[in-house]
Amino acid sequence: MRVLVLGGDGYLGWPTAMYLSSRGHDVSVCDNMIKRYWEAEVGVAPLEEVPTLHTRVRRWQELTGNTIELFVGDIAKNPRFVYRMFETFKPEGLVHYAEQPSAPFSMIDRDKCVQTQINNVAGTLNVLFAVQSMTPDCHIVKLGTMGEYGTPNIDIEEGWLRVTHNGRTDRMLFPKKPGSFYHLSKVHDSHNLEFACRVWGARVTDLNQGIVYGVQTDETTLNTDLRSSFHYDAIFGTVLNRFVAQAVSGIPLTVYGGGGQTRGFLNIKDTLRCVELALNNAAESGEFRVFNQFTEQFSVNDIAETVLRVGKERGLDITSVRIENPRIEMEDHYYNAQHSALGSLGLQPHLLTDGVVDHMFDYVADLKDRIDPRVVSPSVLWKQG
Amino acid sequence: MRVLVLGGDGYLGWPTAMYLSSRGHDVSVCDNMIKRYWEAEVGVAPLEEVPTLHTRVRRWQELTGNTIELFVGDIAKNPRFVYRMFETFKPEGLVHYAEQPSAPFSMIDRDKCVQTQINNVAGTLNVLFAVQSMTPDCHIVKLGTMGEYGTPNIDIEEGWLRVTHNGRTDRMLFPKKPGSFYHLSKVHDSHNLEFACRVWGARVTDLNQGIVYGVQTDETTLNTDLRSSFHYDAIFGTVLNRFVAQAVSGIPLTVYGGGGQTRGFLNIKDTLRCVELALNNAAESGEFRVFNQFTEQFSVNDIAETVLRVGKERGLDITSVRIENPRIEMEDHYYNAQHSALGSLGLQPHLLTDGVVDHMFDYVADLKDRIDPRVVSPSVLWKQG
Repeated sequence: MRVLVLGGDGYLGWPTAMYLSSRGHDVSVCDNMIKRYWEAEVGVAPLEEVPTLHTRVRRWQELTGNTIELFVGDIAKNPRFVYRMFETFKPEGLVHYAEQPSAPFSMIDRDKCVQTQINNVAGTLNVLFAVQSMTPDCHIVKLGTMGEYGTPNIDIEEGWLRVTHNGRTDRMLFPKKPGSFYHLSKVHDSHNLEFACRVWGARVTDLNQGIVYGVQTDETTLNTDLRSSFHYDAIFGTVLNRFVAQAVSGIPLTVYGGGGQTRGFLNIKDTLRCVELALNNAAESGEFRVFNQFTEQFSVNDIAETVLRVGKERGLDITSVRIENPRIEMEDHYYNAQHSALGSLGLQPHLLTDGVVDHMFDYVADLKDRIDPRVVSPSVLWKQG
Repeated sequence: MRVLVLGGDGYLGWPTAMYLSSRGHDVSVCDNMIKRYWEAEVGVAPLEEVPTLHTRVRRWQELTGNTIELFVGDIAKNPRFVYRMFETFKPEGLVHYAEQPSAPFSMIDRDKCVQTQINNVAGTLNVLFAVQSMTPDCHIVKLGTMGEYGTPNIDIEEGWLRVTHNGRTDRMLFPKKPGSFYHLSKVHDSHNLEFACRVWGARVTDLNQGIVYGVQTDETTLNTDLRSSFHYDAIFGTVLNRFVAQAVSGIPLTVYGGGGQTRGFLNIKDTLRCVELALNNAAESGEFRVFNQFTEQFSVNDIAETVLRVGKERGLDITSVRIENPRIEMEDHYYNAQHSALGSLGLQPHLLTDGVVDHMFDYVADLKDRIDPRVVSPSVLWKQG
């Protein structure tokens, strides 16, 4: 299958591109590299230096003989680039990661909020129009987030909800209450995507992904040039990655507020497999299909306890500390999210065992000297506006 | 009350500004006049030439002694302008009409779609940040649309819905399925506004307005320079205005598809009163309040029959004709939308009597020579992309 990976320079985009390429797909990647600029703007860097995408694509070809074509351009600002890319490559499947991915980044100030929403919404609209115009049969696999749902007091279903009200019933989009301008941008995308399915017959799978942890996949470990980015900072790093970096550095793990915030989690290896399962089982024309993409639910306290336990097993002297929650979110809430669709397509989860966390410690410990403790503490407050 | 009307050059913005000014409020208006540019782009014009906003503000002062301050600038592209306007005028109430208002315009092509969503979403975000930063207590009255809801098979409530699912209950945003990229932009706004209430304690009333008809208010008729814009074209004209123009010109009324499409309607005079009622009864800090702003439900066929009846009474030889629906929408559907909140605040509706329609005929008949029949037929197809 010809698969175009948008956001191919990113934490998940590059491992996905290699994974699909190694399984015989004809893969192209597209990126404008803007995330590297955003990192520099806020003063953070991945734990290991990440080779340019040009280098990584070249090295992948040298090692495997598989070509990954590279398109460099901005899907949000350069629609002509987008149309030409679709006309040239004619993707049958599309994996769309090309969005500003951080909630704290979107909450820094007005400028970052508007940038996030315009970048994500306009980029997705440009892609929708290019698909409709150039490759209407192309299956769009779009990365959303479990954070779109917020923390409702009812079970979270996979995108749609059968609602009965005053004796009448309809199948409706699951009502959402997202927790940041970033999460909101993904909700906007989801509404736009559903509309494109309804009026144009687009084929869309919206993957509402949980919090991803880990960085190593079968492909990233083939060669040092093939690595992906591991973020442990408070802007782009996710909670488990951050806690492991703190533990390795001997900094107390910073639990935001009560720590009862519960979310879905998954291993980076499962992200790749989920995307593959979605591609191999395409949505029908006109179908807006939503999968909740995570394998286990944990609270922040659960994650902290796991990291503390594994760290202590390794002989580290570590603790955790509650700090004032920089976010505005419920810290004690009901959370039960369905996630059976990907399982029924064949997903075999990599669960969060102590062994997996221990392996993350190995990875981070080797790079201990590169950890900057100052970027791990939260600097963005939801309240300030 | 100091009230800032955003979109003060528009069909509803200008009559609202005069209405509030005449009732003793200290009113400012803001506009970038871009709607006049959009009209020129698609080749349509209001039935009567509309004096510049500068002229109208000046004439209003000459006639009434009331000053309406004018801010000219782009709220979507010039955040510094927005912040300074809030800092200067310090509004206690804000009426936000400053959005691209047409569904067909948003469906013309990729460029118009992206323009619509960026203009509407970024403009509203800039306003939210300016309010939060400069006048956090300001009550934001935002114009949404009943079209955000689409045509669900359940009763439409006012913005929120109590959902029971698997034995648990929550109060959630009403799930929406809007019918164009324009309507989608308003759904995006609503989500962003609800979030601002939740995290910043913003005070927001979202007015999900039905289809407005009429053009004359007590203030617009005071002087020929005070008129507002009457659109009868297929891009910016609403259905009743369009049908009356067709009837006066002797063109068959063009009913899209089966004509069973049912929507909420209201008289322009009720728009002004609803906005006033919202301002006089502000939302609490942190409250995202939604009112469904219409007074009666009609199908397109109902509206066509009324216009045919009144036209025939006036001796006109007129008919209606079904044309292929340029939109993609249900033409035979359940529709029952709640709209009691504004009534309970004191709204006394101007209902759509034959007399009201006859009065619209009078207005349009005087301007018959200015009607261009070519702009009344739909030129934008939802399907094309």
